[in-house]
Amino acid sequence: MTGTLSPAKVAQIRSSFAAQGLMVSLGAELVLLSAGCVSVAAPIRAETSQQHGFAHAGLTFALGDSAAGYAALSLMPDGAEVLTVEMKINLIAPAAGDRLVATGSVVRAGRRLVVVGAEVMAEASGQSRLVALLQGTMIPA
Amino acid sequence: MTGTLSPAKVAQIRSSFAAQGLMVSLGAELVLLSAGCVSVAAPIRAETSQQHGFAHAGLTFALGDSAAGYAALSLMPDGAEVLTVEMKINLIAPAAGDRLVATGSVVRAGRRLVVVGAEVMAEASGQSRLVALLQGTMIPA
Amino acid sequence: MTGTLSPAKVAQIRSSFAAQGLMVSLGAELVLLSAGCVSVAAPIRAETSQQHGFAHAGLTFALGDSAAGYAALSLMPDGAEVLTVEMKINLIAPAAGDRLVATGSVVRAGRRLVVVGAEVMAEASGQSRLVALLQGTMIPA
Amino acid sequence: MTGTLSPAKVAQIRSSFAAQGLMVSLGAELVLLSAGCVSVAAPIRAETSQQHGFAHAGLTFALGDSAAGYAALSLMPDGAEVLTVEMKINLIAPAAGDRLVATGSVVRAGRRLVVVGAEVMAEASGQSRLVALLQGTMIPA
Repeated sequence: MTGTLSPAKVAQIRSSFAAQGLMVSLGAELVLLSAGCVSVAAPIRAETSQQHGFAHAGLTFALGDSAAGYAALSLMPDGAEVLTVEMKINLIAPAAGDRLVATGSVVRAGRRLVVVGAEVMAEASGQSRLVALLQGTMIPA
Repeated sequence: MTGTLSPAKVAQIRSSFAAQGLMVSLGAELVLLSAGCVSVAAPIRAETSQQHGFAHAGLTFALGDSAAGYAALSLMPDGAEVLTVEMKINLIAPAAGDRLVATGSVVRAGRRLVVVGAEVMAEASGQSRLVALLQGTMIPA
Repeated sequence: MTGTLSPAKVAQIRSSFAAQGLMVSLGAELVLLSAGCVSVAAPIRAETSQQHGFAHAGLTFALGDSAAGYAALSLMPDGAEVLTVEMKINLIAPAAGDRLVATGSVVRAGRRLVVVGAEVMAEASGQSRLVALLQGTMIPA
Repeated sequence: MTGTLSPAKVAQIRSSFAAQGLMVSLGAELVLLSAGCVSVAAPIRAETSQQHGFAHAGLTFALGDSAAGYAALSLMPDGAEVLTVEMKINLIAPAAGDRLVATGSVVRAGRRLVVVGAEVMAEASGQSRLVALLQGTMIPA
């Protein structure tokens, strides 16, 4: 279900992402953009930590949800926008390190509902570790 | 399951909250602190919005998760810390307005696991509207 | 959001319930039917147990999901049918006793999506105990 | 994380499965048993259907939950038993066909918590289709 996106779709996703104040505040960037699969990364900083210096679950969730949402949007008709209906996250390991990378993918793209998943990895000293797994539902808006 | 907290527990929760870089960055504050029930509020600002100016799902989640986590911690033995195992959020209405208020509560406090819920309300022009519902699991750490 | 249902809606729900082979096999019955709130009960029997004689999580889920689904259907236009999009269950205590009673309710009834919750209680010796909590999404079909 | 199981573990899982009244009632059987990955199958029958003759979500959930639970148990120390803490299911397509096959796998096996997933496929006329995706948490009991 992954492949090349149209220039119009790439432009729409980049523009939507840039308009998300929270993604800008978190220092997040789009690092992969293909049909049905999108990655979003952000540094783990003191400003986005929880009380022990690890990435806050809110950061982990925000990146996973955005990656999954744009993965869904990448397969929707031009002009559609995307909304999260619901999302579930399992936090698997402490999000320690320099950077989080969330990769969202489409499980099934229906006309009314898109089922998505996302994996969030923490990078530290060149090593990458799974820290969270998300599963949820997106709708065109 | 709600009631007055010991001064030691109040101090622990306030100190833990203040140490969460993300909560500070989001402008969040503890607005209610009782045994088994905690509220956390934050303004809806351009810096925490999604692409249409509503609060980002990442903000809504972060507040709901924190409120639920501290509600769980309020019932744990002194000295314990709390971790989110998993959390599910249903986004019910666009989070439009001036401020989000998340109220977390404990459904069942077990020795090994604490089941929690949270409601997130958006306040606009003196009116309050349910925008998200969370259900999840916390553990003592 | 609860109230009296039209005779047509009551007839539709009773007929749909009777057509669910699994509900019949589980010995389940509709015990409450109102607008936005439906209860379904079933005995805890050896045929529906897990390996320790408690109700199987599959039974608990099936009753909670059905109660929530019919609660959603009770608020949909006449003629609509209902499908579960997704459902999350937290199992809170061992489902020991004589009977499970699941009560589903509508959190928000939108045109495209209905957010629902359900509580499942186990009854034993005249006492009732919360054993599971569900939160999910239904759609008209 | 998959591999051969000890004869003791195989015997424990087979004996536990046979003691689950609900699995017997549903006509379910263990069709794959390896370390960290277990498949459970059951026929789609009138007795386990919903109102349109498709497999009931309760059946789909029960098989997915059991497959995931035994996948978790397969990696736990000998003598441990397993309990579902929470499980989320996304229903992706109508469960039409002759048989459901649920395959559970372990995402991460911790000492206190095991994160699991499951896929449920419906088989019809020699074709197999993904009908549900589960993500949840198991604990040793």
